[in-house]
Amino acid sequence: MVRAAIVGATGIVGQQFLVALRKHPWIEVAVLAASERSAGRSYREAITDPSSGALRWFCEEAPVEEVMGMPVQNAAELNLAAVDVVFSAIESGPARTLEPRFAAERPVISTASAFRYEDDVPILIPGINSEHARLLEVQKRSRGWRGFITPIPNCTTTGLAISLKPIYDAFGLNSVIMTSMQAMSGAGRSPGVLGLDILDNVIPFIPGEEEKVQRETQKILGAFTGNSIDPARFEVSCTCTRVDVREGHTESVFASTGKACQIDDVIRVMRGYVGSSNEAGLPSTPEHMIVVHEDPFRPQPRLDRDAEDGMATTVGRIRKDSVLPNGIKYLLVSHNTKMGAARGAVLVAELLIRDGYIS
Amino acid sequence: MVRAAIVGATGIVGQQFLVALRKHPWIEVAVLAASERSAGRSYREAITDPSSGALRWFCEEAPVEEVMGMPVQNAAELNLAAVDVVFSAIESGPARTLEPRFAAERPVISTASAFRYEDDVPILIPGINSEHARLLEVQKRSRGWRGFITPIPNCTTTGLAISLKPIYDAFGLNSVIMTSMQAMSGAGRSPGVLGLDILDNVIPFIPGEEEKVQRETQKILGAFTGNSIDPARFEVSCTCTRVDVREGHTESVFASTGKACQIDDVIRVMRGYVGSSNEAGLPSTPEHMIVVHEDPFRPQPRLDRDAEDGMATTVGRIRKDSVLPNGIKYLLVSHNTKMGAARGAVLVAELLIRDGYIS
Amino acid sequence: MVRAAIVGATGIVGQQFLVALRKHPWIEVAVLAASERSAGRSYREAITDPSSGALRWFCEEAPVEEVMGMPVQNAAELNLAAVDVVFSAIESGPARTLEPRFAAERPVISTASAFRYEDDVPILIPGINSEHARLLEVQKRSRGWRGFITPIPNCTTTGLAISLKPIYDAFGLNSVIMTSMQAMSGAGRSPGVLGLDILDNVIPFIPGEEEKVQRETQKILGAFTGNSIDPARFEVSCTCTRVDVREGHTESVFASTGKACQIDDVIRVMRGYVGSSNEAGLPSTPEHMIVVHEDPFRPQPRLDRDAEDGMATTVGRIRKDSVLPNGIKYLLVSHNTKMGAARGAVLVAELLIRDGYIS
Amino acid sequence: MVRAAIVGATGIVGQQFLVALRKHPWIEVAVLAASERSAGRSYREAITDPSSGALRWFCEEAPVEEVMGMPVQNAAELNLAAVDVVFSAIESGPARTLEPRFAAERPVISTASAFRYEDDVPILIPGINSEHARLLEVQKRSRGWRGFITPIPNCTTTGLAISLKPIYDAFGLNSVIMTSMQAMSGAGRSPGVLGLDILDNVIPFIPGEEEKVQRETQKILGAFTGNSIDPARFEVSCTCTRVDVREGHTESVFASTGKACQIDDVIRVMRGYVGSSNEAGLPSTPEHMIVVHEDPFRPQPRLDRDAEDGMATTVGRIRKDSVLPNGIKYLLVSHNTKMGAARGAVLVAELLIRDGYIS
Repeated sequence: MVRAAIVGATGIVGQQFLVALRKHPWIEVAVLAASERSAGRSYREAITDPSSGALRWFCEEAPVEEVMGMPVQNAAELNLAAVDVVFSAIESGPARTLEPRFAAERPVISTASAFRYEDDVPILIPGINSEHARLLEVQKRSRGWRGFITPIPNCTTTGLAISLKPIYDAFGLNSVIMTSMQAMSGAGRSPGVLGLDILDNVIPFIPGEEEKVQRETQKILGAFTGNSIDPARFEVSCTCTRVDVREGHTESVFASTGKACQIDDVIRVMRGYVGSSNEAGLPSTPEHMIVVHEDPFRPQPRLDRDAEDGMATTVGRIRKDSVLPNGIKYLLVSHNTKMGAARGAVLVAELLIRDGYIS
Repeated sequence: MVRAAIVGATGIVGQQFLVALRKHPWIEVAVLAASERSAGRSYREAITDPSSGALRWFCEEAPVEEVMGMPVQNAAELNLAAVDVVFSAIESGPARTLEPRFAAERPVISTASAFRYEDDVPILIPGINSEHARLLEVQKRSRGWRGFITPIPNCTTTGLAISLKPIYDAFGLNSVIMTSMQAMSGAGRSPGVLGLDILDNVIPFIPGEEEKVQRETQKILGAFTGNSIDPARFEVSCTCTRVDVREGHTESVFASTGKACQIDDVIRVMRGYVGSSNEAGLPSTPEHMIVVHEDPFRPQPRLDRDAEDGMATTVGRIRKDSVLPNGIKYLLVSHNTKMGAARGAVLVAELLIRDGYIS
Repeated sequence: MVRAAIVGATGIVGQQFLVALRKHPWIEVAVLAASERSAGRSYREAITDPSSGALRWFCEEAPVEEVMGMPVQNAAELNLAAVDVVFSAIESGPARTLEPRFAAERPVISTASAFRYEDDVPILIPGINSEHARLLEVQKRSRGWRGFITPIPNCTTTGLAISLKPIYDAFGLNSVIMTSMQAMSGAGRSPGVLGLDILDNVIPFIPGEEEKVQRETQKILGAFTGNSIDPARFEVSCTCTRVDVREGHTESVFASTGKACQIDDVIRVMRGYVGSSNEAGLPSTPEHMIVVHEDPFRPQPRLDRDAEDGMATTVGRIRKDSVLPNGIKYLLVSHNTKMGAARGAVLVAELLIRDGYIS
Repeated sequence: MVRAAIVGATGIVGQQFLVALRKHPWIEVAVLAASERSAGRSYREAITDPSSGALRWFCEEAPVEEVMGMPVQNAAELNLAAVDVVFSAIESGPARTLEPRFAAERPVISTASAFRYEDDVPILIPGINSEHARLLEVQKRSRGWRGFITPIPNCTTTGLAISLKPIYDAFGLNSVIMTSMQAMSGAGRSPGVLGLDILDNVIPFIPGEEEKVQRETQKILGAFTGNSIDPARFEVSCTCTRVDVREGHTESVFASTGKACQIDDVIRVMRGYVGSSNEAGLPSTPEHMIVVHEDPFRPQPRLDRDAEDGMATTVGRIRKDSVLPNGIKYLLVSHNTKMGAARGAVLVAELLIRDGYIS
């Protein structure tokens, strides 16, 4: 079994890692770490509200009893001796300092954006750009680390990049326009989205989100050149909004393909998409990376976010667009805290274990 | 005073007309009409639920006591002798039959889509295309009617057309891509949107809506040629969705302007827009047809739908788009049941009264 | 296998029956029936919207493919030759006529209220009043039927009666005051609760609901006397409201017990409650009929409605009440469309199969 | 004009005070105070988010431009020379230290609970217990203050006490059982209620709330004895929950009256209730303190919270209860952030100005 440390284990993403790794066939949770405040306590103590005694457990799934008695280490002084891989679920600020320390010794898979845009850092989605993992060798060499840092994408990028990949492969892409209607869970809990603000409302701005999606999509669909990633040459322009939905980002996509294509062909390449590098053998790979609906009332976040256990991207209303050259348009739903966060990071770990980057 | 008949007076749009006309300085409600079922009753009886005794009054505003004792006529046998203008708040199916009967005698202002796409029928938004009213003369001649039919746009078209008008005038338009997040009130109550379906959800499809918006926007911003309207030559491509919001449609717009423009210029022409034909003198014209926010968290439907009493279109996040030629992007909020429905129709009546089409 | 007919199969409760019976170990769906409109079509055709082609399938669970090709019979002319039990998911109006016809030949388990209050009709909750099944013999004799009608309770009664049963057994009950916060699914879809009405709101009235809960609770906890049921002698007074929740009724209960009791004892009898008649052997019986939380922030409908697959009643905040004699108070959450509807009815069928009433 | 200081002016309740005092005929905002962090800045600077430049203004009403340029003082070093009354909108922790300092010099009207339960402190609702103001003389003497502290009730107490007052006066009260469905605004914004937690949910616990309501209701309806308040002798037992509503607390009340009464009499005394001490002359007194509906679907928080500009308590579904001796039951809606917070405190100030306690 690969032994994992969860850093930021007491937060919502950390807890999602605990759920994602429960009974995992290849990976076991060996170490829990959080801020100094939690250090030295058992996990149960660390997540117990001292005034009410209530458990601060944020997932819909039941608390993971197996880890409740485990001690929580101070992330700033983490001992990695008995750890094979670090899952980092911390904010980008502390990630900038802590993740390089971990990476000097061990592989780090991160949900933070801190290192996503550095030249020697891939943003992996297994099945979409598995071959970018080879950039990790470059990173290790250039930084002199025994490990590496590999962040997953922003949760809004994930579904967009997945849905575009078979189109890009089959027809090429000139440009993409996207408007998102994002779920509240993407904002976490500190402070997160207040009920007062989102009820009967749409929030038209998510700071930093649009730039991330635009840049990450180009990098993920870019080409590994041996030393770095050459970003894909299509433009991406987004407007990202928040709606009163718990989980599951909805995205309205307009794309200009490189060559003309029929809607039936788009449906066919999406439905037929099986990944780029034999990822079907990994424990968390969905049976279908993309589920295509022909019922025009789909996808809906509440009905489709859990497709293939939250690991599939669901697409619908694929049709011609009249504005863009070779224009098509569609909607997608992607589970932002499953494929788009902890479970997506676990899938990265599985790929890297299979291919020998983690051992 | 101009004497108005409200046809479809017992439904939600009919009731919005009653609210919109309460204490109106130029127009008085003279006749109420509805389906045969209500005919012969007082308005209060017609909207009283027989089993519970509760009033079936659907507006947030208090019931209009002044009309409660008025008799309700059968719309199919409406006597227009004491009526100067008909406000039609009926569905498109019956509108197709009934509105021509009314128009043979009197001006008809309609919220139904039945006649919107006919060559001799304008879709009026005062301040945006007031000069299209002249097409009504053509219509009267060609159909041999003493009156005419003039429908207002679909509620999703209204805010889009208003926000595009100053851009179109100043810079021209090549194309428009729009994704809407529409409020539930747009779907009415029969059957309307079920709470079960919309809670924690986004519905990605509103049948017929996208085609309406595309076609109506081109017609509204088109040129009156003397005999007909030459639609504006830019393409419009939409994806229309429903979100869990009561009132106020939010739209994410990407537009390609005819010539390059700076964002400051776009803001300036929107803020400075005062209408096309001296509409400021009409009782329902908002002080600002377009309100522009620079706070990136605006517009929000809950905070902005009631701007200028629901008659203004609120715009925010105006910025460059990297995909379209001379691309700009922004969001707007427009009140779909005020400017987008009954109050917008009343504003049309005011224009037509001022200009002598109704007397 | 017991062969079941689902009457009202195209509606939401009918579809919940199809889900509840999928892969059931004892019962198979043999016949589907609905109104004349659907008769003669395949189930798939009957639930396909003719204009859009969309499937009118209302459950969160995926459509039951196994029944899609089955023919739908006209409920009014239902052939029961190949049926052992009828699950009736129709409205109370038609139930009054149709259910006796079915019962003349076969056992009928109904979600309708039509016959709940008749003297020879039990309202069964297996594990709470299984012994009331013996009243079915009286009913068969008195009505001269080969079958019988046995309705399940109103969905709001179910959790209340279950939570009160161990208290009643251990300490007696003088009276019960309850305020419910009910989910929208309890109102179904025709017309159901409009999103426009429930968003940012509480609806303080559900016609007929309070009377049902008061009367049914007394009957369910009453004593079978050999010929009829002697209702329990405690008063029940309710206020039933609707909140913006999809599934799961929350109830705030204040109860006066017959003798004084400690809160620890109430918790103990609730936690220890295992049913009245060895129901643990039935396929659908939950492992715990009542789940008791000590975290004061539980139960919550979203977190607790699916406890034990929607078959448990979850209770929390059990504490002393200062108003009622021997007063206690608590909150409960009960899944109104699982234990409170189709799955509760299937549990009744299982009990009646085990005890020889259905064969 | 009476010159007011708003302490805690940058928070949500402080902002509600600014809205409530805008264009007030008797009171002007003279001083703004907040924590040290804001001290020395203009109000506009103090509420501007430094990273985004957005205004942290939390009310639905537009920001109060008149105060934007005013300097913000440090509440801990507040200069009261030019102040006649202090409105305190701070949390109970700091209130315990700061309010006595202010009260040593000036009258303090507080929304905090810190002093509500002290013997020489009244909890005033003008029109319900105006005569309790005389306890302020006792307080000033016993504490040796030139000013005094007078807190308003918890927002959930307000509507309950108001609705009970005419019943208590006319028929007496033995006991009250209440279940609340409270709006999110009552929890404020730090941290407030997360959308993630409340969507599709009910939260069954609000720490400390039930004890407050129980104790305050007895005190408010108690008798002033000359030196203290003798609490009313009826028991109150509550269960307080949170629902997905923005503003307006809904309460389900069951009450046992001292003598038997008819429902018509209850309606009559509620409708006829005009206050205890000629409060109709105050600027903020609603025309009707209690609005009674006979439509069983009322009150609803969204439709009724703004009755009489948020100052009335709306009651409906008044009917017999079968459990309590002389039992009646009803529902009420009360605006928790208008009558239940800043505007209620302003009404207290008006009473105290009229009666010479503030000058």
